[in-house]
Amino acid sequence: MTSLPITETTRGRRLANRVSHERTTVHAILDEGLVCHVGAVVNGRPWVQPTLHWRVGEDLFIHGHAGNGLYAALLAGAEACATVSLIDGLVLARSAFHHSVNFRSVAVFGTVRNVTDPAEKTAALEAMMDKLAPGRWPDVRAPSASELKATAVLALPITEASAKVRQGPPKDDAEDYALPVWAGVVPLSLTRGEVIEDVS
Amino acid sequence: MTSLPITETTRGRRLANRVSHERTTVHAILDEGLVCHVGAVVNGRPWVQPTLHWRVGEDLFIHGHAGNGLYAALLAGAEACATVSLIDGLVLARSAFHHSVNFRSVAVFGTVRNVTDPAEKTAALEAMMDKLAPGRWPDVRAPSASELKATAVLALPITEASAKVRQGPPKDDAEDYALPVWAGVVPLSLTRGEVIEDVS
Repeated sequence: MTSLPITETTRGRRLANRVSHERTTVHAILDEGLVCHVGAVVNGRPWVQPTLHWRVGEDLFIHGHAGNGLYAALLAGAEACATVSLIDGLVLARSAFHHSVNFRSVAVFGTVRNVTDPAEKTAALEAMMDKLAPGRWPDVRAPSASELKATAVLALPITEASAKVRQGPPKDDAEDYALPVWAGVVPLSLTRGEVIEDVS
Repeated sequence: MTSLPITETTRGRRLANRVSHERTTVHAILDEGLVCHVGAVVNGRPWVQPTLHWRVGEDLFIHGHAGNGLYAALLAGAEACATVSLIDGLVLARSAFHHSVNFRSVAVFGTVRNVTDPAEKTAALEAMMDKLAPGRWPDVRAPSASELKATAVLALPITEASAKVRQGPPKDDAEDYALPVWAGVVPLSLTRGEVIEDVS
């Protein structure tokens, strides 16, 4: 396993045993998450926007309309923090205080690169499709030149990032285990339902 | 229905038909979401952190360890953007370009109020428990004075906020409906699994 460099931002001061900088851990969480929340300062104010993301090698990709305010700020060089979180369960403890959440999250910090080369852009979009609906790309109508131009594809290098993970049962205070309180975990997962065909 | 005021930040420039400032819409999305992503500038850098949230009236609440870097910044007056997003489905269109996501999201902008009064703090934490595990609060050991002190409870007034919603089938270009491509929606939802009792 190789580790990402630990910076002042990604060091993890509290509950350090929950923090990881291992690339494999960071990548696995990014790959399992469908949506990241991208934060940046837009017009002088913090702004957090959800968007699909995908990873190719050491880059985290996002895409969207080139006219979006957040994307315009990022393309102008604003620093980003892209956070992906997977919620794995509610942790119900015997004391109110020790209730918790099982989760896996990653925060990636940096500035984006604008992917403008049509071939690289198309390959990036195909990689996104392969994450969401593997094998679908050859079936759908490919983007036209103007569609490709209207789509901003941004690459955020995964060079400054950390993962945070909490899993397992509640951790109660020793004296609370004797309390007659049900304790355990309610698992949570983002699940796919039965597909709905568009018969238009 | 009453509407929140529309500001320069929450106006919604693109796809304005997807944007709402109705309180009932904003509140319903906040109430259904378990986790919000809170963004702020911490030590000069954008920072986005996932955390449980809940709503009481016109306030969005979050809580955490008083020593957390983000919470310290918010308590020192840093502006926050708290975003809640519900991912309802993948929208598979006939063209790559019109692929989309069904979602409901809310962004709330503002500065937090530190909830310090022990009675108000306890009531707020009880409201959180009632959201996650209704009726559980009287069963668990209540917070001690020191536990209450170690827990920061922050109230973000829902006065500047907007919702964004996309639902329904893909919207393809007219000429693409004739293509022999499967199109439709893959529903997604955060679902609870079978509970795992802690037998420690």
